[in-house]
Amino acid sequence: MNPIEGHLPTRSPLHDILAPTGIAVIGASADPTKRGYKAMVGLIKDGYRGDIYPVNPKADMILGVKAWPSVTAIPGNPQLALICTPAATVPGLIAECGRRGIKGAVILASGFAEVGGEGAALEREMMVKAEAHGVRIIGPNTSGVFNLHHHINLLALDNVRPGDVGIISQSGNMLLSLALEAQHNGHVGFSTYVGPGNQSDIGFNDYLRYLGEDEHTRVATLYVEGFRDGRKFLEVARDVTAMKPVVVYKSGSTEQGQKAASSHTGALAGSYAMTVDLLRQSGVSVVQYSDEILPVAEGLGLLQKSRGKRVAVISDGGGQATIASDRLSEAGLELAELSEATRAKLREVLFPQASTVNPVDVAGSTDANPSLLATCMEIVAADDNVDSVFLVGMFGGYSIRFAESLLGDEMRGAEAMVDLSNATEKPLVIYSLYTPIKPPALRRLHEAGLPVYASIEQSVRVLAALGERGQYLAQASGQSRETPVAARPELTTMFRQARAEGRDLFEYEAKQLLRDHGVEVPEERVVRNEAELAAAALGETPLAMKVVSKDILHKSDAGGVKLNVVGEAAMHEAREAILDACRAYDANAEIEGVLVTPMAKKGVEVIVGVIRDPIFGPVLMFGLGGIFVEILEDVAFRAIPLSRHDARSMVEQIKAKRILEGVRGESAVDKEALVDLLLKVSSIVAAYPDLKELDLNPVIVNADGYAVVDARVIVDRDTAATDEDARA
Amino acid sequence: MNPIEGHLPTRSPLHDILAPTGIAVIGASADPTKRGYKAMVGLIKDGYRGDIYPVNPKADMILGVKAWPSVTAIPGNPQLALICTPAATVPGLIAECGRRGIKGAVILASGFAEVGGEGAALEREMMVKAEAHGVRIIGPNTSGVFNLHHHINLLALDNVRPGDVGIISQSGNMLLSLALEAQHNGHVGFSTYVGPGNQSDIGFNDYLRYLGEDEHTRVATLYVEGFRDGRKFLEVARDVTAMKPVVVYKSGSTEQGQKAASSHTGALAGSYAMTVDLLRQSGVSVVQYSDEILPVAEGLGLLQKSRGKRVAVISDGGGQATIASDRLSEAGLELAELSEATRAKLREVLFPQASTVNPVDVAGSTDANPSLLATCMEIVAADDNVDSVFLVGMFGGYSIRFAESLLGDEMRGAEAMVDLSNATEKPLVIYSLYTPIKPPALRRLHEAGLPVYASIEQSVRVLAALGERGQYLAQASGQSRETPVAARPELTTMFRQARAEGRDLFEYEAKQLLRDHGVEVPEERVVRNEAELAAAALGETPLAMKVVSKDILHKSDAGGVKLNVVGEAAMHEAREAILDACRAYDANAEIEGVLVTPMAKKGVEVIVGVIRDPIFGPVLMFGLGGIFVEILEDVAFRAIPLSRHDARSMVEQIKAKRILEGVRGESAVDKEALVDLLLKVSSIVAAYPDLKELDLNPVIVNADGYAVVDARVIVDRDTAATDEDARA
Repeated sequence: MNPIEGHLPTRSPLHDILAPTGIAVIGASADPTKRGYKAMVGLIKDGYRGDIYPVNPKADMILGVKAWPSVTAIPGNPQLALICTPAATVPGLIAECGRRGIKGAVILASGFAEVGGEGAALEREMMVKAEAHGVRIIGPNTSGVFNLHHHINLLALDNVRPGDVGIISQSGNMLLSLALEAQHNGHVGFSTYVGPGNQSDIGFNDYLRYLGEDEHTRVATLYVEGFRDGRKFLEVARDVTAMKPVVVYKSGSTEQGQKAASSHTGALAGSYAMTVDLLRQSGVSVVQYSDEILPVAEGLGLLQKSRGKRVAVISDGGGQATIASDRLSEAGLELAELSEATRAKLREVLFPQASTVNPVDVAGSTDANPSLLATCMEIVAADDNVDSVFLVGMFGGYSIRFAESLLGDEMRGAEAMVDLSNATEKPLVIYSLYTPIKPPALRRLHEAGLPVYASIEQSVRVLAALGERGQYLAQASGQSRETPVAARPELTTMFRQARAEGRDLFEYEAKQLLRDHGVEVPEERVVRNEAELAAAALGETPLAMKVVSKDILHKSDAGGVKLNVVGEAAMHEAREAILDACRAYDANAEIEGVLVTPMAKKGVEVIVGVIRDPIFGPVLMFGLGGIFVEILEDVAFRAIPLSRHDARSMVEQIKAKRILEGVRGESAVDKEALVDLLLKVSSIVAAYPDLKELDLNPVIVNADGYAVVDARVIVDRDTAATDEDARA
Repeated sequence: MNPIEGHLPTRSPLHDILAPTGIAVIGASADPTKRGYKAMVGLIKDGYRGDIYPVNPKADMILGVKAWPSVTAIPGNPQLALICTPAATVPGLIAECGRRGIKGAVILASGFAEVGGEGAALEREMMVKAEAHGVRIIGPNTSGVFNLHHHINLLALDNVRPGDVGIISQSGNMLLSLALEAQHNGHVGFSTYVGPGNQSDIGFNDYLRYLGEDEHTRVATLYVEGFRDGRKFLEVARDVTAMKPVVVYKSGSTEQGQKAASSHTGALAGSYAMTVDLLRQSGVSVVQYSDEILPVAEGLGLLQKSRGKRVAVISDGGGQATIASDRLSEAGLELAELSEATRAKLREVLFPQASTVNPVDVAGSTDANPSLLATCMEIVAADDNVDSVFLVGMFGGYSIRFAESLLGDEMRGAEAMVDLSNATEKPLVIYSLYTPIKPPALRRLHEAGLPVYASIEQSVRVLAALGERGQYLAQASGQSRETPVAARPELTTMFRQARAEGRDLFEYEAKQLLRDHGVEVPEERVVRNEAELAAAALGETPLAMKVVSKDILHKSDAGGVKLNVVGEAAMHEAREAILDACRAYDANAEIEGVLVTPMAKKGVEVIVGVIRDPIFGPVLMFGLGGIFVEILEDVAFRAIPLSRHDARSMVEQIKAKRILEGVRGESAVDKEALVDLLLKVSSIVAAYPDLKELDLNPVIVNADGYAVVDARVIVDRDTAATDEDARA
């Protein structure tokens, strides 16, 4: 295993690679259309303080810097090489770099694994050299890197200012787009950028860990087309989000988009909904629209505080207060209920016609007195029911719209907002319709690090990200996750037996597995012959009877199920009917017997499933049964193992949860029992690596608890090592 | 009735009011904090060419213009008065204006009906004067008006440029916000703005009709908090959208927002989902987010053409092509399937590694040759499978990012795009990540009237609005709507009878109404006594039996329903059981008998409902039964009468429509039969004004057609006039 990919007690070696005291630019050029030119310009213009070694056999000087015919000829001690030459030259250059003591190389060329065939072979050759000579690789096929706080700009992007947003992007255009947006908005700055490229050595997860450790980065911002080791990513993200916000835009949210994405990078893309659930489980702030990446990163970066979802709105226009309310509600935020004391304080300072119910509408009270808005913000920020404060309207524009003489008071208002922001633990977010023209009061807020937006919609996305992060840090981050149950030898043997027989677990075996680990599965018996029927009878209790056969997967279709069977005579009849139907269905089917179990009580049908995702590993799924899963895809996913918070949040997440809470006169189901079931399944799956997939469908839940009515367990038939054991 | 509110064969009188040859500014002032100052500045600065008459008894000159002590003292012939004085002065001033021959007055003051009580009385007094003196009123409590093509700017907004976007906004701040956004973006201009205020005389619908007629307005843009005569609005919108796009943002999309809205304006707000459906039915382009109002209005205004939903994407970066694909798909648009001929042409001009499957990714082919993007756009625009072309990437920035020497070619590309736009009937939409810094090639596109955006998300909203409008114009606009059936005298009598008895229609009466007008309702009989049972028997066909009683609404709860009854003996038993249970349930219930009907065949349960909305009049609702309506609120609404297109689009709109198309091995239902049912219901409702609400729940639909299983009709008990008839 690559040492950099583990949980490192020491600092990431990327710190040295990305803050070198000398850089060799291999393929440096004086031709303005070449990357080797742009890189040189970038380093010189941004004032890189280390030594620059242009390497080009055909030049003595490049842009005023002495050039060297080869890496070997360089006199100094560069730690980093930027390789701008074509793919075929790279393996040889890496070896040369290694011999020269260079620790890391950024490889721009494409033509490696992403084109397959010979390119893949070339990439392997490159990696052999890199490992032999101890050179760490960024790329190949990377859009480049920058580390602005060390004046290293290997992309030669103009007009990017140093700041606290770190970026990892699988699209160079996306970085460019964010940089241009930031240039235009005039106050967002960047720390480090990495284009991971083919990740033949250093991978996405390493870069994220680096941004987590980097003191100049206050928010890590990721544009992701596909994950490789998704499971590892979730672990790293979990560590980093405990320290600083991680903003992720994941492309491929639709089938169309996924098709476009996979034709581009060849990356495996799991279901978008699942990916989003798992990212959120690790505390990641997922952004749904590309034009919200920068505003959300800015807001989370500026506001190093976040609480919950109860927002107080202060507005000077009813129309925009309504829009803000609509968007807050759609985003799952709440309009904080202001206390009577808070409302009384607002009434003291506002006109009688003002509305002191949230959203607060000052109704003209501030027309001649804009600093009063800051007073209102201070009043609501002091309310315990309020988690964040959202100013909506024309602040900054009073002196433009009403009278220039208001400028002084407006600036005092801005100053008061800055003071409030420093004094309170609650985030303040400002929307002003004057943001596009940057009036002085808004410039002052910006300088002081307050987020000011030109769109209510973007402001609300920031508030939502703040609220979610606040809730995550308070409730989820660091929660202990369910530990695996102790695997029982007889059950492990059961798995091996099934695999040896080339089958999955029988239903009764699956249920045994669950029951033995404390899951509520109604008692049942496999009746193997006529004589055993009597022992399975339960008096007047209606029974369900189902065929047991490894060859019959769809029992109902085969006529292998009889429901509501009451009394021994009926049981005999039902057994005969099942056996006849199944033999007619498949004459060669090997039939073990008939499973007899009491009919489940009335309740809501839910599904609990487990898959082993190729990217993210074992994942638990929960949803309501039938059309909710099949048509509406209304399901929640969490990576296993789950914390109790994870399990609770799954139940709360599904859109149809009102059905669990009781509709049409039904009483609410026992949600905590459901949560226990999810946790139990998580801990069982973690203990039995041979369990590949699990499907509890349906589980009937009602006010008294739950009952697992049907259970399927798919056995992993590829685990060679344990196969050996089974045969022994 | 106000003549202006009808379908006018002549031009709207607003044309004269909004293009006067002289304006009296009542309450004109030299004090910069007063509206009477700002209005004067606005008129002078914007170069109003008519006569300005400041009215102020305390001044001789205001801002260099001779002032008059009163309206009566004015020598000339103003057609419009802007009244800036307090509410109490208004009625007297209106009378004075009327006597002076002034045709219209804009009244800024608040303190009228919106504050209730005395304010409402004052507003009535004002209207009495206005009607007596023939003065039309804009407002009161309006944020003002402008008509920039006539240099009339009564808001004194700075820096608004004349253009083709007309605006009606119930929020002054929203106008201000749009104006600032336009000022910032630098190329959107406005024609007319009206703040309708309290609409005591001229109303929302009149203003919309005016914008429809106004030659300077190419797109009408509305910010609406609440409709008054919603039904009339839909009619006017239907007329206007046939000529030009109408963009509506309706606030109050959530319960929270509705609460905020109604505390602000007191306007009645119907369900947002219903309002959106009805607006779309009339061809309105509904915008969901406030920050998309201006981009969508701009795009629809610039691109006076629209086709369908199949978009061709040309991109120079895979990441952004993926984002575009995701957003297109989410917006209900399609990636056009390019023909083999088109792909061959693309292959001819692009590098071999380019992807010629939509989204087209040029993969570096344009790096040294950006005008090739225009060639690609031309190639795909010629494809019959393509409705619109979307350029995604860094066009405009090639000369910045790669080499300045590319500027010439980039400008040639822009020129070619302009030519293409002039030559093709298909809209071109451009997203460039360089939009924020306005490079020359993008400025050229702007000047030529091509829409260029800084966000993929906004571009896609524009493409979606174009696609929807194109589809509407092709399929829906001008479609004939279902005419009412001829009301039958015996059924009209049935309604009157029910009302006279203070009840709604019995189920069998409701079914009779439907059956008599050709709706498929299974045959059934009311069995009033034991002796009638035999005649209702249907051999071995399983029957449903239900109590008939005006006193028992919830038949199942009362034990008044028996299903799957087979044979006469069982019918006798079931009848007894129903009567016993219902007597036990309500000893005083008057029981008419028992309804006998064949059991419905298997199928999908749907609901067809009709309500009379206080704002929008009779509205048809369609959805799937049970939780789909109750929990998921997955329903479609259309104003009655419906066109066939309306009915079809209802069935296509619901999210669960896959269930109608056959899931779990079921065959698809007969959608056309369902469409016929919706149209039939529409035409029945239109013929019986006494029908207040109707509820067909469930209707069972399957591959063979539909069957109305249960029908409820609520009778309007408030129609006094027909009551008289009934008594006669």
